[in-house]
Amino acid sequence: MERVSAWKAHGGSQQVWRHQSVATGTQMTFSLYLPPQSEAGSVPLVWYLSGLTCTHANVTEKGEYRRACAELGLAFIAPDTSPRGAGVPDDPEGAFDFGWGAGFYVDATEAPWSANYRMWSYVTDELPRLVLEHFPVEPAAQAIMGHSMGGHGALTAALRHPGRYRSVSALAPIVAPSQVPFGTKALAGYLGPDRAAWRAHDSVALIEDGAQLPDLLVDQGAADEFVDAQLRPDLLKAACDAAGIPLTLRMQPGYDHSYYFVSTFMADHIRWHAERLG
Amino acid sequence: MERVSAWKAHGGSQQVWRHQSVATGTQMTFSLYLPPQSEAGSVPLVWYLSGLTCTHANVTEKGEYRRACAELGLAFIAPDTSPRGAGVPDDPEGAFDFGWGAGFYVDATEAPWSANYRMWSYVTDELPRLVLEHFPVEPAAQAIMGHSMGGHGALTAALRHPGRYRSVSALAPIVAPSQVPFGTKALAGYLGPDRAAWRAHDSVALIEDGAQLPDLLVDQGAADEFVDAQLRPDLLKAACDAAGIPLTLRMQPGYDHSYYFVSTFMADHIRWHAERLG
Repeated sequence: MERVSAWKAHGGSQQVWRHQSVATGTQMTFSLYLPPQSEAGSVPLVWYLSGLTCTHANVTEKGEYRRACAELGLAFIAPDTSPRGAGVPDDPEGAFDFGWGAGFYVDATEAPWSANYRMWSYVTDELPRLVLEHFPVEPAAQAIMGHSMGGHGALTAALRHPGRYRSVSALAPIVAPSQVPFGTKALAGYLGPDRAAWRAHDSVALIEDGAQLPDLLVDQGAADEFVDAQLRPDLLKAACDAAGIPLTLRMQPGYDHSYYFVSTFMADHIRWHAERLG
Repeated sequence: MERVSAWKAHGGSQQVWRHQSVATGTQMTFSLYLPPQSEAGSVPLVWYLSGLTCTHANVTEKGEYRRACAELGLAFIAPDTSPRGAGVPDDPEGAFDFGWGAGFYVDATEAPWSANYRMWSYVTDELPRLVLEHFPVEPAAQAIMGHSMGGHGALTAALRHPGRYRSVSALAPIVAPSQVPFGTKALAGYLGPDRAAWRAHDSVALIEDGAQLPDLLVDQGAADEFVDAQLRPDLLKAACDAAGIPLTLRMQPGYDHSYYFVSTFMADHIRWHAERLG
């Protein structure tokens, strides 16, 4: 693992790391914020999964999470959203919603994607092991959140790893990829046409199939251009209601899908996690 | 004036505007954050002048000022740092410290710069008139701050307009351009070799020549690579001490010159201004 950079920020250290990933077969880059409290011992860790087109850099530069993380003593990690670079196939037409920047947090089974597009293994297995080994973070105090495609990743990771994450939240998440254009394109492309295989990467389907969460905070911009066609918080609400999952769903008037929305509600989410991480 | 974009953020509206400038003879772009309080009436305005290489976008995306401005009811404006675009001369070798992105907040008198590089007139005359005319901001409640070259701009603007700005602060400012490489290159290039003309754009010289400020907050990263050769807070301190200007100079251990430094101390500066803007 190579440290690419480190900046002092809000009393802690904002770092960027690069390493050779076994899961993806590529170099992967992630950012990690260590709050000042980490100098004295291990701290809880918040996982943040990013949305379509993003790298680790978007939330690192625009996310406005450091002040709250420094106050509350939380580390914050932001992985990339796909493998990328020489030798890694990208969408043949350069679409923003497939290929580079659009790994959808699945392990692809279809050629040519299956060689590198193994973001599920990367984000839920390889990177957690690496981070817990190398940094002062508490294995028993992890939380997960994400934005858009990363909200989908955060929800599915939490639903399929009961007990691993003490809290879960999302900003404008994709919740039912099997039922929306971004999701059906990605899941068909990476996992093939058999829809049965898609259910393990569809939060609404996982909840319908019995997966649980202790509770869940979701903020959604009411002026988000993707809300009706791609995000469908109504489907998440119906599934949570039917399964008895306490969902706090806040429709935020006037907000769109951008990092101006994300940064506005970031501190609320950090506090939500801090309360549950103890 | 054309509104390029607007996003709801922290309860207010982050906007980007473009207009044809008389001062520079070019299209100029600026960002303006209007806090939620501006829907009910005029609010105080904080001017933020940016550093070398920046446009309005750097602080807008990375500055982390919106939460504090929304809490305290302040508007926040960030102009560009130079004219730029087709027909505007740039440094012949593409240097980052002269030409595009490096206007140094002066009105150039030397060819070929004098046609467009009139950032002093733009930032202290044309843009204030435009903003006070078009937006719900209080003419009698303005503050000014800046980073690096923009700290230089903020300090000189305040020193030369007694009473206009109710408060002044800077992050890692250039304070004595006549005495440091960035400054001597810029002032010689834009204003010519006569050093007498430089004094009106040198904060330390202006203070030596009798200009005053009610008080002044400066944060400076102690690990800033530019501190000894370019920024020289020691010269500002000596000048303020001699002139009786109450300077709060905070050397911040471990911080560099980046927006990780700026964003860390931004809220402190916003609060400093809010207290003085009433």
